[in-house]
Amino acid sequence: MTATALLLDGKALSKQMEADLKIRVARIIEKTGVVPVLATILVGNDPSSEVYVKMKGNACERVGMTSVKVHLPEETTTEELLAAIDKLNNDDRICGILLQHPVPHQIDERACFDKIAIDKDVDGVTCLGFGRMSMNEPAYGSATPAGIMELLKHYKLPIAGKHAVVVGRSPILGKPVAMMLLNENATVTICHSRTSNLPELIKQADIIVGAVGKPEFIKAEWIKDNAVVVDAGYHTGGIGDIELGPLKDRAAAYTPVPGGVGPMTIATLIAQTVASAEKKIAS
Amino acid sequence: MTATALLLDGKALSKQMEADLKIRVARIIEKTGVVPVLATILVGNDPSSEVYVKMKGNACERVGMTSVKVHLPEETTTEELLAAIDKLNNDDRICGILLQHPVPHQIDERACFDKIAIDKDVDGVTCLGFGRMSMNEPAYGSATPAGIMELLKHYKLPIAGKHAVVVGRSPILGKPVAMMLLNENATVTICHSRTSNLPELIKQADIIVGAVGKPEFIKAEWIKDNAVVVDAGYHTGGIGDIELGPLKDRAAAYTPVPGGVGPMTIATLIAQTVASAEKKIAS
Repeated sequence: MTATALLLDGKALSKQMEADLKIRVARIIEKTGVVPVLATILVGNDPSSEVYVKMKGNACERVGMTSVKVHLPEETTTEELLAAIDKLNNDDRICGILLQHPVPHQIDERACFDKIAIDKDVDGVTCLGFGRMSMNEPAYGSATPAGIMELLKHYKLPIAGKHAVVVGRSPILGKPVAMMLLNENATVTICHSRTSNLPELIKQADIIVGAVGKPEFIKAEWIKDNAVVVDAGYHTGGIGDIELGPLKDRAAAYTPVPGGVGPMTIATLIAQTVASAEKKIAS
Repeated sequence: MTATALLLDGKALSKQMEADLKIRVARIIEKTGVVPVLATILVGNDPSSEVYVKMKGNACERVGMTSVKVHLPEETTTEELLAAIDKLNNDDRICGILLQHPVPHQIDERACFDKIAIDKDVDGVTCLGFGRMSMNEPAYGSATPAGIMELLKHYKLPIAGKHAVVVGRSPILGKPVAMMLLNENATVTICHSRTSNLPELIKQADIIVGAVGKPEFIKAEWIKDNAVVVDAGYHTGGIGDIELGPLKDRAAAYTPVPGGVGPMTIATLIAQTVASAEKKIAS
């Protein structure tokens, strides 16, 4: 017996979110006469990073915000980047700061992430923001995981009491999505490169999150019927971290690649920037 | 076939740690002429909290440090406690601050924990400290989980590639121990009150950590042979969160209650206070 899995349409939901955000931005401008600004920082010339930053800038414009683009050369030092972030922290017009990941190797990325002021950390990359989110305190979540959670909630997929298996433990993806799922009362297993019995663990997943960054690393046959399949990977050729093909008939739901998690990441970043702008008015 | 499980003797190891700490404290005093100070804050009159604070003060004295005891009345407000913490933050003699948990209900415990300056957070209770630890950045770990890790390392129990199952997800125990085990390359499952198939999940554990706060909630029969059993619970009558009796023959190793995790918590707090004092000299 095969049914068709529910497609978790991140593209459609992100458009819906943007429509709502456009109204909220218009209201902010009406109240304050000031257009909210997201600052994006790109260091070096990595082509996909350039594309991502551009996409984020375009999303700002679509909802009526502005983005200030800071583009620093490949040879930028940690100190120079810290200074650039500090300037944006102290610039009252800036509501949010996005430091595009990854930065060139000579830069201490963690120090630079953590330099971002907590109230402008709309991409959710600081240690403080991660800690606050983990403890259920108000904080902007890391954008991709927060986008995943938004998608699951939008489609009213039950999380509490479910066994979620997260494959990957990166600072802005695996670790935060694990804590977010835990805070929504899932039982959470975090797997990674050192996990010895990956297929058996994945077999238990009611919700599987692929966040390893390796093309189709997670095989369809490892995933049980009726699982909710979330693929946070994106690789050339439009494939993700999970072998999605065979799952489209037997999963309960899945995120397509592209058009699933990717658009939600950007929409979440923008939503959190708008929230930051609204907070500024309220305070 | 039954063997005798290795007893993870927290009492003995904590004594060994104290002997080393005593030497380090003497060196600090020799260099600076100043005795390092841990500030302990007790709010209200909870008898077990009083005992814990006293035990921590005594441990300070055993290694040659001083403790300053701040005892506030049961009706203390959040604002009053925040002010008391701020005073200690700004007091140059104080190397570490311990706010005894739990505080009376009217107090915003999270706000008070997070008021503790990161360099004095020797009990590892701040969101920032948790975030930094989770991201493998230097930070004082939450004392009980950090003590557990120390115990596992002392007995050279392998962690990498093992499946660790943590039962409980509290801010100062379940969540941090899960992240610490993950950072040591364990595959980690976090279970809690909403977990639907607890016995089956526990059955998979190579390392089981009981951190639920319910007497013998975790049954011996749920735990497989040759597991490493860590019991972070303590209840009247000298029992923990795990039914330890039947495991003493068939576990690989286990922490006794009392004398396992408890003494390690205090030793870790003291060790982190000494580390803070040493950092002050270096800076």
